[in-house]
Amino acid sequence: MVNSAMTGLRCSMCGTAHAANELQTVCRQCGRVLVVEYDLERAAQTLTRENLRERAHDLWRFAEIMPVDDESRRVTLGEGGTPLLKLPTLGQRFGMSRLLVKDESRNPTGSFKARGLCAAVARAAELGATAICLPSAGNAASAASAYAARAGLGCVVIMPQDTPPVFLAECATLGAQVYLVDGLINDAGRILRDHGQGRGWFDVSTLKEPYRAEGKKTMGLEIAEQLGWRLPDVIVYPTGGGTGIVGMWKAFDELERMGFIGPERPRMVVVQSTGCAPIVRAFEQRERHAELWQDAATIAPGMRVPVAIGDYLILDAVRASEGTAIAVDDMDTLAMTRTVAETEGLFLSPECGAVFAAIAQLRESGFIGEDDETIAFGTGSGLKHTELFGDVHPILHPDDPGISALFDQFAPPLEATNG
Amino acid sequence: MVNSAMTGLRCSMCGTAHAANELQTVCRQCGRVLVVEYDLERAAQTLTRENLRERAHDLWRFAEIMPVDDESRRVTLGEGGTPLLKLPTLGQRFGMSRLLVKDESRNPTGSFKARGLCAAVARAAELGATAICLPSAGNAASAASAYAARAGLGCVVIMPQDTPPVFLAECATLGAQVYLVDGLINDAGRILRDHGQGRGWFDVSTLKEPYRAEGKKTMGLEIAEQLGWRLPDVIVYPTGGGTGIVGMWKAFDELERMGFIGPERPRMVVVQSTGCAPIVRAFEQRERHAELWQDAATIAPGMRVPVAIGDYLILDAVRASEGTAIAVDDMDTLAMTRTVAETEGLFLSPECGAVFAAIAQLRESGFIGEDDETIAFGTGSGLKHTELFGDVHPILHPDDPGISALFDQFAPPLEATNG
Repeated sequence: MVNSAMTGLRCSMCGTAHAANELQTVCRQCGRVLVVEYDLERAAQTLTRENLRERAHDLWRFAEIMPVDDESRRVTLGEGGTPLLKLPTLGQRFGMSRLLVKDESRNPTGSFKARGLCAAVARAAELGATAICLPSAGNAASAASAYAARAGLGCVVIMPQDTPPVFLAECATLGAQVYLVDGLINDAGRILRDHGQGRGWFDVSTLKEPYRAEGKKTMGLEIAEQLGWRLPDVIVYPTGGGTGIVGMWKAFDELERMGFIGPERPRMVVVQSTGCAPIVRAFEQRERHAELWQDAATIAPGMRVPVAIGDYLILDAVRASEGTAIAVDDMDTLAMTRTVAETEGLFLSPECGAVFAAIAQLRESGFIGEDDETIAFGTGSGLKHTELFGDVHPILHPDDPGISALFDQFAPPLEATNG
Repeated sequence: MVNSAMTGLRCSMCGTAHAANELQTVCRQCGRVLVVEYDLERAAQTLTRENLRERAHDLWRFAEIMPVDDESRRVTLGEGGTPLLKLPTLGQRFGMSRLLVKDESRNPTGSFKARGLCAAVARAAELGATAICLPSAGNAASAASAYAARAGLGCVVIMPQDTPPVFLAECATLGAQVYLVDGLINDAGRILRDHGQGRGWFDVSTLKEPYRAEGKKTMGLEIAEQLGWRLPDVIVYPTGGGTGIVGMWKAFDELERMGFIGPERPRMVVVQSTGCAPIVRAFEQRERHAELWQDAATIAPGMRVPVAIGDYLILDAVRASEGTAIAVDDMDTLAMTRTVAETEGLFLSPECGAVFAAIAQLRESGFIGEDDETIAFGTGSGLKHTELFGDVHPILHPDDPGISALFDQFAPPLEATNG
């Protein structure tokens, strides 16, 4: 059995130490984000390139630097191990020789949120929680519902009332208690703070407990491993709460300290929507914290996050990496979601369309060079957003002799290959 | 580079040899199913347990016994390598100590169909096809659309007009030309036979070309590898066209001839719907062929397949394995789909609900013993079927002081874990 080398928690802002062996939320001193610390020297004794070859491709592959001690508590639905796919056709269109996508839609419940909630739910259960709650734009609620069911915990989720209905059906079928809010994710969070206390619901909001970021960290670990223990030139990531940026940045640091990689880092690019771009605004204004974005509106639910408790951690990582932050409008997002599907066979969520629209802009501006190895994050599946892609299709009646003429009209004959 | 050891095609009924280096459909002599043959001795020289440890977990991991010669033609979206998950909670409920699910919903486009279409599209492209067409109940059309886009081929799909709308949006966004039919999958197939000829659309209907079964075969290869090169006691599989049963049975034979496994085989169980059970009826009546099922109707699109060209291959495999065939009604299917989601965190398609309902029945009848290692096939994602799982959820207004009372009513306090 492989042990976790976790040693404790520390506040990312004021440095106050917190015990890891009890349920924790944010820093008791300053209210900011707690991060998990490990004895990396100890971890590196068993977390080796050689040992990794023998391990399953789920989140617990990296157990030494994951926060669950008891092996039997390492809840899994086989998350992680997602493909890193080359995109030659799209790359050519953008004038890029090395464009890849990390296809996170292949996780349980169809998104990258599986990683964070897997870790958070497993750790919460290990520390005695019997139910979790969270505000969500959609995918986090799905993942929380699934892992809570798998771990035998209760689950309460609150989502904006206009969240695509697939998310609601998914969460309810997975046994969660689903509420909607006449507002956005931050309003849902406020409701849980105001009315959810004392009910035994452990709040697993983004970065308001220390373990979701640890799950998200595995995206960075996997990228390094999939590239043969090196990092790409650029990582482009759709950003709501920002746990992924924060988690990956931490992963790279831990990998370097364990000797897996050197000091090189990718430029980290935050992508938001022009309808909700608090991090982009703060980046441009050289602020360390991002003010709440008023009247947030975008077709991409995962980017409709008006305020992020980890704003300073996101902005620190982007700046340290010499990255950037860019906002994309919904029309470009939608068009690019279609383009990615048609050219590469990947039906991803609108957040991912925004990522590719951002890449096109950054390529044009020269921020991304022709030969920069660039990893686009495909954070979720398009299957949850089909209301954006409706269309009308001809209905054929089997005995109608006019079908041939219809075929001629809608799909003209192509070069004959099948007689 | 690893070469395919493919040697040719042979009719599964009359034995007539066919060349593999040109596009083929069914046997030119008798119209039955063609199967791919390999030089397994040659394949076994490089397809070894040791070499497999070094290979990526996509379909082409097994390249020696896959039908594509040119490495650059091995189209991939990172399909396969799906988790084989233990289901302890559900197992306990059924009185089973070793219940597992092969979670095929984790494939590209959310279903097992990715495997067959990956192989068929790649091989069709290698042999010069520029467009494919197929009749589909839904998931095959999604997978065909994705792989055609990835390979740069045109794609025409025809689905029943009441196919859940997610499938239509998915296919259209992936660039396929989508038609609906006032009828079922066999009517769609007839339209393509009557009106699709001479258009350059290569027809990749189930078992009407030899390569989809090769892709599906990898489910059997993976199971053997994931269990440490042995097979389970029972495999339970939802059956429409039946390529999976046929493909896995072929995989086991090839693995034995290459020395990976012995002569032991799992009992293969076909699951259909009481509203469309042609294979079950033929099994019970000891027929080798299954007559068309009239007025087929079920909530599970993948099992609404009234007639299967490979009927004799499915029935042969089930009988040779001392398996069985069982029909489940839609109410049990729906209820069990929910049960699996709530107990294990897996939101699967109704075909999978039918599989688990069948397992419950077979456990009760004693066909499945308490300690039989049983693999249930989770063939697809529930995300494409949310119209079956709709519900009404309370809408909260952030400033409403009555929220606490509502929480009290809908989700009573649980044992306190979070203060």
